[in-house]
Amino acid sequence: MYKKVNLAAKLASFDEVWVPKVVAELNGQLVKVVKFEGEYCWHQHENEDELFWVLAGQMKVLLRDGEVDLGPGEFYVVPRGVEHKPVVPDGICEVVLFEPDTTLNTGDVRNDLTRARLDRI
Amino acid sequence: MYKKVNLAAKLASFDEVWVPKVVAELNGQLVKVVKFEGEYCWHQHENEDELFWVLAGQMKVLLRDGEVDLGPGEFYVVPRGVEHKPVVPDGICEVVLFEPDTTLNTGDVRNDLTRARLDRI
Repeated sequence: MYKKVNLAAKLASFDEVWVPKVVAELNGQLVKVVKFEGEYCWHQHENEDELFWVLAGQMKVLLRDGEVDLGPGEFYVVPRGVEHKPVVPDGICEVVLFEPDTTLNTGDVRNDLTRARLDRI
Repeated sequence: MYKKVNLAAKLASFDEVWVPKVVAELNGQLVKVVKFEGEYCWHQHENEDELFWVLAGQMKVLLRDGEVDLGPGEFYVVPRGVEHKPVVPDGICEVVLFEPDTTLNTGDVRNDLTRARLDRI
């Protein structure tokens, strides 16, 4: 109890990309940190809105009919059921996700990046 | 739709302290920004865990049996039912809150700062 979370320290503790790590849980929601590099797959989350908050680097959230550019201090909520594809044009992007504990990282897609259970760091 | 949130821009748009502003809603939860200055009242939220994430400045979350110091890039989750008192030792502290849309800003206390309905900015 009374343990604060330092996001930079959490992000410095791993190198793996595209696989979120859980750093806190509250009200049935998880706070996760993740490193993105290159392109992810198109996917959607049927029942969960998903928040992407960029801490460092740049990313795009591609949507079927548009795209959102995000830099540090900016976030975007992908509504449930909306197909999206996260893309990092250059280098690594460090991101916080805020979403229900039921959210699967690859949404309705199953691939090598799919994790039924995420590490807590 | 496809509207991202720039936190610095949101925070630059108001001066009022201790009254959170809603900047996004997802999964029955709200993302809020708030400016803290000086001392708040002791209070608790019976049914909601509350996340304090410092963007700029410094704050303390006083608890009945301890305290948590938070600076930029650090957050802390106050568990439901735990009395707490946010304090800013110096200047203004800019904070993000994640919490259910049922959370009242002054918890179980009613005072001049209590707002049944928060502005969305």
